[in-house]
Formats: sequence, structure tokens, C-alpha cells
Amino acid sequence: NPRLHVSLEERRSSCKHPIASRLFDLMMAKKSNLCVAADLPSLDEVITLAESIGPKIVVLKIHVDILEDFSLTKIRQLKEVARAHEFLIMEDRKFADIANTVQQQFHGGVYRISEWADLITAHPLPGPEMITHMFGDSSSDSRRTCGCVLILEMSTKNALTNEDYAKEAAKWGLIASDIVTGFVGQSAPNSDFPGWIQFTPGVNSSSASGDSKGQQYCSPAKAVLERGADIIIVGRGLINSQDVVATAETYRTEGWAALTQRITN
Amino acid sequence: NPRLHVSLEERRSSCKHPIASRLFDLMMAKKSNLCVAADLPSLDEVITLAESIGPKIVVLKIHVDILEDFSLTKIRQLKEVARAHEFLIMEDRKFADIANTVQQQFHGGVYRISEWADLITAHPLPGPEMITHMFGDSSSDSRRTCGCVLILEMSTKNALTNEDYAKEAAKWGLIASDIVTGFVGQSAPNSDFPGWIQFTPGVNSSSASGDSKGQQYCSPAKAVLERGADIIIVGRGLINSQDVVATAETYRTEGWAALTQRITN
Ligand SMILES: O=c1cc(CO)n([C@@H]2O[C@H](COP(=O)(O)O)[C@@H](O)[C@H]2O)c(=O)[nH]1
Ligand SMILES: O=c1cc(CO)n([C@@H]2O[C@H](COP(=O)(O)O)[C@@H](O)[C@H]2O)c(=O)[nH]1
Repeated sequence: NPRLHVSLEERRSSCKHPIASRLFDLMMAKKSNLCVAADLPSLDEVITLAESIGPKIVVLKIHVDILEDFSLTKIRQLKEVARAHEFLIMEDRKFADIANTVQQQFHGGVYRISEWADLITAHPLPGPEMITHMFGDSSSDSRRTCGCVLILEMSTKNALTNEDYAKEAAKWGLIASDIVTGFVGQSAPNSDFPGWIQFTPGVNSSSASGDSKGQQYCSPAKAVLERGADIIIVGRGLINSQDVVATAETYRTEGWAALTQRITN
Repeated sequence: NPRLHVSLEERRSSCKHPIASRLFDLMMAKKSNLCVAADLPSLDEVITLAESIGPKIVVLKIHVDILEDFSLTKIRQLKEVARAHEFLIMEDRKFADIANTVQQQFHGGVYRISEWADLITAHPLPGPEMITHMFGDSSSDSRRTCGCVLILEMSTKNALTNEDYAKEAAKWGLIASDIVTGFVGQSAPNSDFPGWIQFTPGVNSSSASGDSKGQQYCSPAKAVLERGADIIIVGRGLINSQDVVATAETYRTEGWAALTQRITN
């Protein structure tokens, strides 16, 4: 897959979405390809974490529906931290329903995700019309302010996201490449579109196997060099560590070294 | 598929989950196989709807994350209506993540879904361990109070839930048949386990085609007789009608007549 060896500058110039360009800029400026999965039970704790590791990361990934103290006010506080430390916020909602439903889930409810998320995740399962209708027509704000990341492959044992599934999904993701800014996967997909960014979860330096509940792990180097990750997603490997700042620095260094090595090879 | 012609009494006796038995009881007592998708923007409106159509339905399906006025107090009010009119509440969350994440989404956050949902939906995509860990071991309350409904096939145009996908998913759903009480699908799955209940969405008497955003519709009779639905899920065909009670009665009558006809044939 030629994408893997193209420079970030060059890939940035193929981007069709402003959020993807911004992410390439942040990666180059911060020398980081680290996304942290802030799976903590409260937004207060997420904000504290973000304040400390903000300089090391390019994306902070959250699950808004596990936060027991959610409020739009606190989300605005988190947005301030993101502005100050220059990282994007990804809401890992994994939208996966008919268009009429996901429209309401994306724009409405208590969370109003489209008002604050820079990136959201979606399962391609319901077919292509979900995403196009969710983001609206070209006059819609969320088309520019929020990028869609398609889940092509899952990190879990016995996942149903097999090769055929990922191939089919990548195909229609490419058709909507003004909305789809990247994908979540465990391998480079059957597309070498350099503007797409690959996010790889299941990264943990201290656990070689998994979490005993189906999650499977590999190291940052393996994720980048063998599996094609541009961005590594690290959750419990970091948030449960004693010194989160030092751990973030370690993951940043390892991830970035692997990415630089892959590109120059 | 022999399941389709077995009496509800007999199927009830094969159930491995108390919620499935309860649903068969409600169907027989209320002569109804109607599930209404209450996709309204506020819980107040959902409660008002439930009070009026409660006697006609066996399940009220909601998307908790589209409700702008969600509170646990109002959910308790809805539970009271469900108790008074005897129907189950299905939270159509379509869980689809690693076990560690869905555990937090199911039990935690603002919604605390496991405290009030009788049924939840899940995509089998991440593999079997998601569900078993989400519901906990046999000592866990939610094992008995909440049934899992697997999405085997979606109703949308170009969905990726093809035959292979549905077959594979049904296989491991059966392994967990003390948790999985049924499935969402557009055809009888490759399992004839009579204790499983088939829910079929995309039912609308007044629209023969779809919603112009990928949703595809058929009539109640077609859903039950040709596609194997035990329960029909009706959303906009009912909630947007002038007289929701009269419309509910029409769908109840048509759905039940088709189910009776299928069983006795
Ligand atoms: O296939 C996937 C996809 C995603 C992201 O879309 N995730 C998420 O990454 C994070 C991994 O966390 P961990 O490093 O603690 O296992 C979790 O938030 C999980 O929901 C995965 O773990 N696997
Ligand atoms: O494949 C599916 C699965 C589900 C349920 O899990 N649904 C849901 O049924 C309802 C159909 O609504 P409608 O009758 O208004 O199209 C929506 O809540 C939608 O999210 C579908 O429409 N299609």
C-alpha cells in the first residue's frame, strides 16, 4: 500500500476535509500520532487528564455516554483545553442506525454531539445513506466542522469485520471522501487514498495479549509498522498508569519514531 | 423454518429468558405483536404517547439519546406507564464496541440503561465477548431483568448485513441464548430455535417504498407472512399519524391477524 510511505506533507495536500488537514498539521507540529482514549467515568476527570497530557496528543477520544456528570458547560470547558493545547476531540459514538435515527442522535438529545465533536466514529453497517444524511448537504455546518471516521475492522477477538466487510465498507467510504476523513482498522484497507487517516486501537505496551474480555493488544511499533496505523489509540495502557504525563511521552515518542521510520523506508 | 408455524404457547415453553417468556405472555393476553418506535424528541412526548397507545402494544422502543429532556425521574414515570398498561421498554442502543466500553455504556453514564431497560439491542459486530461481559455472570441482576436483541439484518438499502454476516451472528447468539432473547431481522435467520423472537422494523402501511434516506418499508402482513416477523416495529407510520390510537389499533389488528394466519397455516 503506497499510502504508508508517503510523507505527511504530501498526504495533507490530498485531504478533502478541513479536519483531516488540521490533523496532519497537528501531527507535524507536535511530532505526535497519539490519540488517548479517555475512558473515565466523569467529564471532570477527563478535563483534568486533558490538561496534563494535552501537549503530547493530537486527538482525545471520549465516549460521551459513559460520563455520569455530562453537561454542555463542561464540554465547553474541554473544548477550551483542546484549543489551548491544540488537539481534536473525537466522540467514539459508533453510529450504526438508519439515517433518520442517526440524524437525531448526532444533532439532538442531551449531548448535541454535532455542536462540539471534531471527529465522530461510525459503523458502515447500515449502508452509505446513513452518513450522507447525517452530515447533511453541502450547506450544513457539520460537513466542515466534523469529520467522520469509519470503523472498517474491530480490534476484538472473533469480530465480524472480515476482509470482505472492510473492503465493501472502504469502497463506499471513498465515495463520500468529502465527509469520511479516515478509518479505524487493524490493517491498511483496500484503498491507497493518501488523504485518509488510519486510527488503530488495541495498543498497549505493557500487555502483549488482551484484557480478558475480548480486547486484543499490540505495541505502538507493531501497530504503525505492521498494521498501517497513522494514529495509535491508547486507553487503559495510559489512563491506568501511575504517571500519565510520562506515559504519554513514552507512547508519543514510540509512536512517532515508528511513523517516521515507516515513511522514510 | 419450523419456528414460524409453532404456537406461541409452545414457543413460550422453549424460552431461556424470563423477558422472552413475559413477552410471549403479553402477546397472547393483548392479542398484539406491535412494537412502536417512539422516535420523538422529548421524554414528555414519549410518555404522553405511551399513555394513549399503551393498551395496544407489547413493546415501546426508544432511542434514549435523542431525548432532549432525559432524566431518571421521567424514565421512572415511563416505567409506571409500562407497568399500568403492560408493555416492555426496549432501548434501541445498538451496542457495538469492545466489552470494556459497552459495560460502561450499559450500566453507567447519565442514562444507566441497565437499571430500566427490559430489552436492549446490540450489533454482533465486535464478536461474542461483548454481550457476555456486558450482562455479567449469572449472579448479575441484568441477566434476568434485561434481554438482549441482536441485530442480524438491517432494513436499509445497501446494508452490509448480508447472509454470511447474519448466519455467523445467529450462530454465536444461540450460544448465549440465556442472554439473547431474540433478533432484529428482515428474514427468518438460520436458526429455528423457537424461543427466539424476531423483531422486524421498516413496517409502514402507507409508504410502499421508503423514507428517501435509505429506510425501506413493507406492510405488516408482508413483514409477518413473508419475512418471518413475530413482532412488527412501526415508527413514523404511527407517530406521525393524526390519530395515533386509531392507527395503533389498525397496526395491532393487521399484525395479529397475519401472525395468527401464519401459525395456523
Ligand atoms: O475496534 C475498536 C474500535 C475502537 C474505537 O473506535 N476501540 C476503542 O478504543 C479504546 C481502547 O481502549 P483500551 O486501550 O483501554 O483497550 C476504547 O475506547 C474502545 O471503545 C477499540 O478498542 N476497538
Ligand atoms: O434495521 C433496522 C433496525 C432498527 C431497530 O433496531 N430500526 C429502527 O426502527 C425504527 C424504524 O422507524 P420508522 O418506522 O419510522 O422508519 C427506528 O427507530 C430505527 O432506528 C430500523 O429502522 N432498521
